[in-house]
Amino acid sequence: MKSHRKELWFQLPTRRAFVNITSQVEVTLRESGIREGFILVNAMHITASVFINDDESGLHADYESWLERLAPHEPVGQYRHNRTGEDNADAHLKRQVMGREVVVAVTEGKLDFGPWEQIFYGEFDGGRRKRVLIKIIGE
Amino acid sequence: MKSHRKELWFQLPTRRAFVNITSQVEVTLRESGIREGFILVNAMHITASVFINDDESGLHADYESWLERLAPHEPVGQYRHNRTGEDNADAHLKRQVMGREVVVAVTEGKLDFGPWEQIFYGEFDGGRRKRVLIKIIGE
Amino acid sequence: MKSHRKELWFQLPTRRAFVNITSQVEVTLRESGIREGFILVNAMHITASVFINDDESGLHADYESWLERLAPHEPVGQYRHNRTGEDNADAHLKRQVMGREVVVAVTEGKLDFGPWEQIFYGEFDGGRRKRVLIKIIGE
Repeated sequence: MKSHRKELWFQLPTRRAFVNITSQVEVTLRESGIREGFILVNAMHITASVFINDDESGLHADYESWLERLAPHEPVGQYRHNRTGEDNADAHLKRQVMGREVVVAVTEGKLDFGPWEQIFYGEFDGGRRKRVLIKIIGE
Repeated sequence: MKSHRKELWFQLPTRRAFVNITSQVEVTLRESGIREGFILVNAMHITASVFINDDESGLHADYESWLERLAPHEPVGQYRHNRTGEDNADAHLKRQVMGREVVVAVTEGKLDFGPWEQIFYGEFDGGRRKRVLIKIIGE
Repeated sequence: MKSHRKELWFQLPTRRAFVNITSQVEVTLRESGIREGFILVNAMHITASVFINDDESGLHADYESWLERLAPHEPVGQYRHNRTGEDNADAHLKRQVMGREVVVAVTEGKLDFGPWEQIFYGEFDGGRRKRVLIKIIGE
């Protein structure tokens, strides 16, 4: 069994954003030389997500307004977590809806994807350096 | 390390439905000959889910009405994604709540499940051909 | 490829609770002797979750009130599942928001975690014996 590991780094200027990281994951997979196995892509921070969906800007705007409705950022005083001096409690909630990680099958050296699947980094508390972990196991 | 791959195909007549696919996953696991490892089951389409829960029709009706409350299909004009000509933005949102994939342990050649765990395909934008991927790695 | 399996048992006195299980997962990883691979941690019951987030009591209180808002326990008669004699339909819904499982990379014999990542068991229908499965594969 082989394994391969890489970190992606982000520092996004806005509080919230979605970044398509599919091509970076594909490059990492090629570097690994692994042909059959699993690839794990996860946020290493607890106010961010990695998820798979469509690369369509209207949909991303829908996610933004929907997540704000489910777990609004304001008023920050509505969350007990923010009594610690943080203002990011909503980001911890949004990340649970969108998920921490994806596991993708590797088949014949490629991401084994359906026609529209793309991998995104979802930032819910930007403005600081944060990481995504890519780990691949297989042969 | 061995690996095994299979696709399941669906074309459901209704917009939304839940289909128990546990027995098809079990058949695929037996075909693989893998005794210890992981099995990944994921929707290959971004308006569908694979998830694990109870095979109880009342609960499925509860999921249906709850997801409609969290992310209503109508009015379709409330979603920017639908300006592309689609009417399935809600399906992209519902799929995030229910999840894209499950990873299940394989132990002694079987799905290593608790007493009530069953695997479901969740369709949120039916009426077209869609796939689920089963990928197993192990020994 | 090596594999290792362990169950954790819980019987929590309250209906809902969050329990930090990170150190138990770390002990299991050391027992396995696996240095590179993946670790799967999943609830074996369908009214419970395993998830990764912050070990901060204010945040856990926020999760509690937020999940009660998204999928309230009362009135129990609002859910069709509860016509079976259960009163835990809300727990099946809450578990979908928080997730069934996490997959964590194992690197150099350790959980490959960001600075604040901790693994939690999320109970949404306590008062009975329930299990979490830890399964590790790798080398």
